[in-house]
Amino acid sequence: MNIYTLPKGTYSEKATKKFLEYIDGDYNIKYCNSIYDIFESVSNGGLGVVPIENSIEGSVSLTQDLLLQFKNIKILGELSLDIHHNLIGYDKDKIKIIISHPQALAQCRNYIKRHGWEVKAVESTAKAVKIVAESKDENLGAIGSKESAEYYNLKILDKNIEDYKNNKTRFILIGKNVKFKTLPKKYKVSIVFELKEDKPGALYHILKEFAERNINLTRIESRPSKKRLGTYIFYIDFEDSKEDLEEIIKSLKKHTTFINILGRYPVFD
Amino acid sequence: MNIYTLPKGTYSEKATKKFLEYIDGDYNIKYCNSIYDIFESVSNGGLGVVPIENSIEGSVSLTQDLLLQFKNIKILGELSLDIHHNLIGYDKDKIKIIISHPQALAQCRNYIKRHGWEVKAVESTAKAVKIVAESKDENLGAIGSKESAEYYNLKILDKNIEDYKNNKTRFILIGKNVKFKTLPKKYKVSIVFELKEDKPGALYHILKEFAERNINLTRIESRPSKKRLGTYIFYIDFEDSKEDLEEIIKSLKKHTTFINILGRYPVFD
Repeated sequence: MNIYTLPKGTYSEKATKKFLEYIDGDYNIKYCNSIYDIFESVSNGGLGVVPIENSIEGSVSLTQDLLLQFKNIKILGELSLDIHHNLIGYDKDKIKIIISHPQALAQCRNYIKRHGWEVKAVESTAKAVKIVAESKDENLGAIGSKESAEYYNLKILDKNIEDYKNNKTRFILIGKNVKFKTLPKKYKVSIVFELKEDKPGALYHILKEFAERNINLTRIESRPSKKRLGTYIFYIDFEDSKEDLEEIIKSLKKHTTFINILGRYPVFD
Repeated sequence: MNIYTLPKGTYSEKATKKFLEYIDGDYNIKYCNSIYDIFESVSNGGLGVVPIENSIEGSVSLTQDLLLQFKNIKILGELSLDIHHNLIGYDKDKIKIIISHPQALAQCRNYIKRHGWEVKAVESTAKAVKIVAESKDENLGAIGSKESAEYYNLKILDKNIEDYKNNKTRFILIGKNVKFKTLPKKYKVSIVFELKEDKPGALYHILKEFAERNINLTRIESRPSKKRLGTYIFYIDFEDSKEDLEEIIKSLKKHTTFINILGRYPVFD
């Protein structure tokens, strides 16, 4: 079987290798150029690994759109990786311009500002490192991963240059089903629904159902519905509890026009 | 003065021209390669226009990160544009592969599936159209804007091919201050805060403050805080009401470790 993810050297590839330690069975890693390609491949079989939150490798809203569109694909598992950025180039004292992905530039903004460097945004951290390597220009520096510096034979001039050290990205395992070797204790449920009424307090009633059952929400996000004007769909993640999931969903249905379970899945550390 | 936005032919440029109809004073449009570059430029003066929701031109989470980082930049106004996708190429009957931005491919997925075409994701819709134009390959089609088809002298083979017709993207005007010629009736407030306690019901108490005042929330989103593990920051937009904003903020402060007003601004139609 195949497990699809983003290209070599990405954090998504790293997350895939981590997932494979927990998965029972033989899987070959196949590399795709986009999150969209991964969903398309997985819809024909196999597994996939994509970023779901605050990532330099893709848009969160795209992953969410695709989870809603590909009804036969479920979330099967989750894990988080620490994201570290490195200054890559030739000679720190000669650098004038820093090149990287916009999200990486944003995450190292104080560091860049302290040095007074100019910035230039490109599509990926890998492309930034490639540009610096091919230009052979000592005035350029890139922000990227350790692996990309090694690949292009460039020096790491500063390690862990991100402004906030608690920089994690969550990745999800997607597919129809999977068997894990061992299971962690922590489980999560992801749901998506549309509120019946666009009026003050509608969401408040939903949260009341969770608060009364003492269930912790770990994420909430609203997005404008594309089907009807002025309505919103909500993505909510919550910790799986001893409460009956069907009973919870039933209680929410009073307030929603539709509700889908995107997955009930283990969270690996 | 300058107003900074994304390159010619983008929806962001279109939104900028629309904003300029409402703005008092003379502004020159300056084009930047990324949302990050726009924020950097605006922090030194002038105005900027960036997408804030569900866009094919940039990451929502990036715009939100930058609004939190650039403390001297406020949201000054908002407007929405209808997004339409077009099939662009040579001959619809000869097409085998469709190229576009992943978000555009996702938004036209049913249309593509109906025709049985393969897909290929690239960084932008403009780049997709460029590839089709330069290849002169009749087997290729791109999904992109009317303007990009005109620019590359290609045919529009099908109009408005998006699966859901209510496809809008919101854009915000950012800067330190601005004078509008006329003001709409509708105002919105955007705030960001961190909850004091990571426990069930913490967010519920926040929403109660809004529900009791009969204030409509138009967006809610949680993001993991980068400063402390296990804590979340929330972005909330709400309709500006007759209630005193300072009083509302004071009532929320009971539940938060910090709270920032990202802007109190008019919403143009």
